Amino acid sequence: MSRTQPAGTPLGDAFHVYDTTLRDGAQREGISYSIADKLAVARHLDALGVGFIEGGWPGALPKDTEFFARAAAGELELRHAVLVAFGSTRKAGTTAAKDPQVRALLDSQAPVVTLVAKSDRRHIERALRTDVAENCAMVSDTVSFLVGEGRRVFLDAEHFFDGYAYDPDTALRVLEAAATAGADVVVLCDTNGGMLPLGIAEVVTEVAARTGFRLGIHCQDDTGCAVANTVSAVQAGATHVQCTANGYGERTGNADLFPVVGNLVTKLGMPVLPEGALAELTRTAHALAEIANIAPDTHQPYVGASAFAHKAGLHASAIKVDPELYNHMDPVEVGNGQRILVTEMAGRASVELKGAELGLDLASRPDATEAVVATVKEREAAGWSFEAADASLELLMRAALGERESAPFTLESYRVITEHRADGEVVAEATVKVLVDGERMIATEEGNGPVNALDAALRAALAPFCPWLEDVELSDYKVRILSRAGSQEGHGTDAVTRVLVESTDRDGSWTTIGVHGNVVEASWLALVDALAYAAMRARRPAAGEETAEEVVAAR
Amino acid sequence: MSRTQPAGTPLGDAFHVYDTTLRDGAQREGISYSIADKLAVARHLDALGVGFIEGGWPGALPKDTEFFARAAAGELELRHAVLVAFGSTRKAGTTAAKDPQVRALLDSQAPVVTLVAKSDRRHIERALRTDVAENCAMVSDTVSFLVGEGRRVFLDAEHFFDGYAYDPDTALRVLEAAATAGADVVVLCDTNGGMLPLGIAEVVTEVAARTGFRLGIHCQDDTGCAVANTVSAVQAGATHVQCTANGYGERTGNADLFPVVGNLVTKLGMPVLPEGALAELTRTAHALAEIANIAPDTHQPYVGASAFAHKAGLHASAIKVDPELYNHMDPVEVGNGQRILVTEMAGRASVELKGAELGLDLASRPDATEAVVATVKEREAAGWSFEAADASLELLMRAALGERESAPFTLESYRVITEHRADGEVVAEATVKVLVDGERMIATEEGNGPVNALDAALRAALAPFCPWLEDVELSDYKVRILSRAGSQEGHGTDAVTRVLVESTDRDGSWTTIGVHGNVVEASWLALVDALAYAAMRARRPAAGEETAEEVVAAR
Repeated sequence: MSRTQPAGTPLGDAFHVYDTTLRDGAQREGISYSIADKLAVARHLDALGVGFIEGGWPGALPKDTEFFARAAAGELELRHAVLVAFGSTRKAGTTAAKDPQVRALLDSQAPVVTLVAKSDRRHIERALRTDVAENCAMVSDTVSFLVGEGRRVFLDAEHFFDGYAYDPDTALRVLEAAATAGADVVVLCDTNGGMLPLGIAEVVTEVAARTGFRLGIHCQDDTGCAVANTVSAVQAGATHVQCTANGYGERTGNADLFPVVGNLVTKLGMPVLPEGALAELTRTAHALAEIANIAPDTHQPYVGASAFAHKAGLHASAIKVDPELYNHMDPVEVGNGQRILVTEMAGRASVELKGAELGLDLASRPDATEAVVATVKEREAAGWSFEAADASLELLMRAALGERESAPFTLESYRVITEHRADGEVVAEATVKVLVDGERMIATEEGNGPVNALDAALRAALAPFCPWLEDVELSDYKVRILSRAGSQEGHGTDAVTRVLVESTDRDGSWTTIGVHGNVVEASWLALVDALAYAAMRARRPAAGEETAEEVVAAR
Repeated sequence: MSRTQPAGTPLGDAFHVYDTTLRDGAQREGISYSIADKLAVARHLDALGVGFIEGGWPGALPKDTEFFARAAAGELELRHAVLVAFGSTRKAGTTAAKDPQVRALLDSQAPVVTLVAKSDRRHIERALRTDVAENCAMVSDTVSFLVGEGRRVFLDAEHFFDGYAYDPDTALRVLEAAATAGADVVVLCDTNGGMLPLGIAEVVTEVAARTGFRLGIHCQDDTGCAVANTVSAVQAGATHVQCTANGYGERTGNADLFPVVGNLVTKLGMPVLPEGALAELTRTAHALAEIANIAPDTHQPYVGASAFAHKAGLHASAIKVDPELYNHMDPVEVGNGQRILVTEMAGRASVELKGAELGLDLASRPDATEAVVATVKEREAAGWSFEAADASLELLMRAALGERESAPFTLESYRVITEHRADGEVVAEATVKVLVDGERMIATEEGNGPVNALDAALRAALAPFCPWLEDVELSDYKVRILSRAGSQEGHGTDAVTRVLVESTDRDGSWTTIGVHGNVVEASWLALVDALAYAAMRARRPAAGEETAEEVVAAR
């Protein structure tokens, strides 16, 4: 964990794509990442090739402290990115070495630390209740201490643009305190998000000229200009951009990583991601939305399902002849597709590509590819989403290739009862009746909830026949309620439920999906796929392992 | 209907806020306005004070032809805005007077006509299959004809920025053809949406200097910069902005009217709306989302429910002292409100502020505040999240103040059965036993899923006692699975489930929460809170309505 520079992009350390989804993004209303979620987010961002991943605020939030501990213990292997701990400068009237929050940053073992400091005199005096000199001392002491301990340090100058407009000397003194003490990058933050792009460009140009420091940019979206402001800052000389996946963040959110990267690469010709990674943009955006349990924005630039969808009668026929006249870029570059009608993204090419990713040769079997495309389209129209359920997609592809390894049983029926008894106890109980190897098995088990009980009963029924089941665990379970397809109303409990189940065995993990009007049946469908996939892995350990790794790598 | 200039803003005709929601906005996937919808949209936009409302494309779309006919017949009275018909120039090889599409523009009786014309030589040659000279003749003939018929004419120069980059002379010749023939404004369109703000500003500055024409701007959001590009164009000299409500439009959408106006008024000091109208921004945005049947974007700049919501513990106490330090503007100016999210970091200050927002005086009752803080902390540690469940929080606060209005019944027990039968059918059935007004009621109902069945059974049991229940609907239902608090593993189906239920009656909507290891019980808890809140509203119509309005305003 000693690397302090990002690896693998043509621009190397000369340009930083810095992601703060796990810290600033988590401020978004409704987001509440578990530690497992945080690890998964970091893996996706690393696979995309961002340079820095700000993992949280160790010492301030227990969950973040644990995230860094588990990352340091080997649970997070990063190929491209460097892990960053976020924290504040020492408190007034103490030393950095004695400040427990500063110690927590060291203890996190993150090789890079980003410190936040006030740079608006009004905030220094009215919120921090100290003076500019002490504020600068807090910055320079803390930076020096951390640099002395071998950390690379960046400084987030909070409320910089407002502060610079109000009192430029104070704002610049704070930057100077940091840079002189050894901070590598000073990041100008539009914390209240009130700036417009021409103003951002003007200030960045001016500050670069007056200080010569390496500048970063951090924008909030309160004027709807966070992406534009970030890109304008880069055009004015900033070489470090702080963004969040899908723009998650407090209030109106932060600069969205995906359009920022799309603009830098395709509009400004800056290769800020490793070669080939841009094509992962769309998949990554959707996967991170799934983890946050927030519906992807279909109209999101570059990566939204509608981003290249044309409806206008004016265009539709012309597009067929001359697609490049009607798109600002080729959607394939960012892993997206052009759609003419309201349909799902699945096309032959993407299915073949996905098959190749999973080690299946669909390219030489056009009949199978057609069948997969048809099934995916039909199911996705009904609410399924295979982007986050590779194992279900692989089963579907193997079925089309005639290879399907079926589930290790046939269902006769199940029944799940949830009771809130008169004595106040809440109990769930499930009974399943299945055929396994020609034998009829009946099992009843209790559980914390209906799905847990169902899972337990199914395992009890299969246990005598499937010894490998002991290694298989249900490790995550996500539910999303969707408006009923084809209905304008379709709200409330009268809607379609999508369940994603993540399972693990000793060698890896895989995700399956089920969709149904009834949450229990949707869960059942996902459980059945999970066991079919597990059975396939158990029967074909070698191939299974390879596939598992690919599945894991693709998450 | 003969007025051709907007009425009522301090800037008068010197600056145009031009809305194209009804034409370009309607290109958004999923939008399908009826004529009544179109009339309602126009009335809202007029009440907000936009200068021009582009109503559609008469002659090309029958619905639009009828919209103009009904508007001309007196169904649409506009106080501020002028109605605009959109259409294309005459076809090649005919005259404007004989072209039926041009005649349809006249027949619409709209006093202003916006003509779209190609300004990119590649489009002229490859899509239109004509040459630059004929294209310019089509523009100048059509403009002259319409001006001669007493219409005010604007020209939308399609694909202008791409065309100007490819062949500036052709692009400028098209503008000149229009302006010389009498078009008042030539609108530079970034039709493919690939521009960035510094580039927009550069081109607008250059074209203004080279032509001296009055320039407008029309931006699509494919780089995520439509708002920024529009505002940058204004800073570079454009005096006419084309936008759509909530950014509705094809692909990633158009420049969003609301942040564009918010930025022009509050950041650039341009009074582009009539006096007092800015405070209608939030209400208008939400009303237009309702008409389009699209959920409002809670994170939308200026007008989103979360646009001024603060979550960070870093800020909460400071905000109370000095709100203007933490917002880029006063939310009241745009008719929005500041919300404080009560989260894990909840302290006394944020609870008091939240209470005040809900009309409850917690500041003078420190004991009650302490109790609320303690309960919120304890529950949020167990997975509850009150930031999205104002109604449950209000019930909790009222309980602490000794005011709690209890639920209209007492539960004895419930039982929910989900069965996947041997014949393949999936059924859910619930039985509830409750005490209402001293009577024991038992009801059994079926449903699509366990929660739907439980809701139905509870309603059946309460119906004879709670006539107001008829107006209450369960309008949204969200489920999130959380790792079990306090457990490092606690995944999969063995976890805590958080359910959010949104309910509506005639006057408003409210959200309640339930958390439990069993999804059915979690849903039950949220349903019970929903009905307790509904009962309170039903018993105290006046107070209830006020609270409802606050809840609605705060969403």
